Amino acid sequence: MAPFRLVMDSFWFSPYSFSAFVGLTEKGIPFEIQELALHKQENKTIEYRKSSITGRIPAIQHGEFWLAESGAIIEYLDDVLPTPSYKSLLPQKLEEKAKARMILAWIRSSRDLMPLITERSTETMFYERAKSPLSEAGQKSAEKLIEFANLLLSESSDFLFDSWCIADTDLAFALHRLILNHDPVPRHLKQYAEVQWQRPSAKAFIDRPRPDYVSY
Amino acid sequence: MAPFRLVMDSFWFSPYSFSAFVGLTEKGIPFEIQELALHKQENKTIEYRKSSITGRIPAIQHGEFWLAESGAIIEYLDDVLPTPSYKSLLPQKLEEKAKARMILAWIRSSRDLMPLITERSTETMFYERAKSPLSEAGQKSAEKLIEFANLLLSESSDFLFDSWCIADTDLAFALHRLILNHDPVPRHLKQYAEVQWQRPSAKAFIDRPRPDYVSY
Repeated sequence: MAPFRLVMDSFWFSPYSFSAFVGLTEKGIPFEIQELALHKQENKTIEYRKSSITGRIPAIQHGEFWLAESGAIIEYLDDVLPTPSYKSLLPQKLEEKAKARMILAWIRSSRDLMPLITERSTETMFYERAKSPLSEAGQKSAEKLIEFANLLLSESSDFLFDSWCIADTDLAFALHRLILNHDPVPRHLKQYAEVQWQRPSAKAFIDRPRPDYVSY
Repeated sequence: MAPFRLVMDSFWFSPYSFSAFVGLTEKGIPFEIQELALHKQENKTIEYRKSSITGRIPAIQHGEFWLAESGAIIEYLDDVLPTPSYKSLLPQKLEEKAKARMILAWIRSSRDLMPLITERSTETMFYERAKSPLSEAGQKSAEKLIEFANLLLSESSDFLFDSWCIADTDLAFALHRLILNHDPVPRHLKQYAEVQWQRPSAKAFIDRPRPDYVSY
């Protein structure tokens, strides 16, 4: 098998780098990491734009093949490293797989989440906690996330489906924007998110020593 | 097979309704359409929020199963209506499939595209053309889209890969924000996008008689 390389942000705080990192780690394969300093615009070089096409992180390189967009990376990993030899990142059951994809897509594209993402940036998760309470828009955004999670997890549960999938990791990351900043989160959702946070593949990212943050 | 229903916007101008509509149409199966008047917040009812989970359109109902997020809908259609009995919406070859997913994901989530989406809204595509030239941010956004398309389609070609896939339809939609508003688009990309625009599954959406637009 050709070697894998993950290209990600040097501050280790992109939610999408996190998702791709956890995906690769769960597959149990060795992979190289290349950090790009986004504050130095290292993702804007012609070389990286040509390889990644999007100019965004994360991207993976597998042999000669390049791929950006974390959702597409997750799918690719399940395609080239299939179950049962490797752990599946998405559920096996068709309807659960569909719901997991819906969750990944919503977290990546919902405008409803934008105020939350701005006011509870990943800088407030991994560097310095937020200094202000959520604005009205931020609160609405947080409520939307909680409603979304509640509709999927109406009762206390460790996982969205029968066992772990990558959507658990992604949803837990979003909830941790609130949890780490001591914003209110219903107890069963907090417990659920904390289970994902303790997962070794997630901890390897979360506990990583980080360089000083430089605003950009 | 349980019947399919597509829940979409009543103005027929959501790019994601378009993608799901084309996907269902390409599968060649009958499906019902339910229009929601977003300007009347018909997507904000408790009932719809519970069914869709996201409260967004499009969503599909397949028997008792509900699914929102157009990217997840496309995947689900390929899973429940597989090739060779049905046309595949995503490419068959693993690396091409991955790239197609990357394209769908980028179009749905890139912040780089936001100024273009705002200044060349789908209202300007299906109702009244834009009245102002692109701002500096809008131009940068347009350049980003064109760079993206150029990296994927360096030469004149009808399709991204060997034959049509849903990413062609989505990419052509984004390019038509510029084309329909007479903003400059390189000739080979314009020709490519126009091929997709003429596709019967796309025309069935594009040429649909629309109700008067109500701003919301």
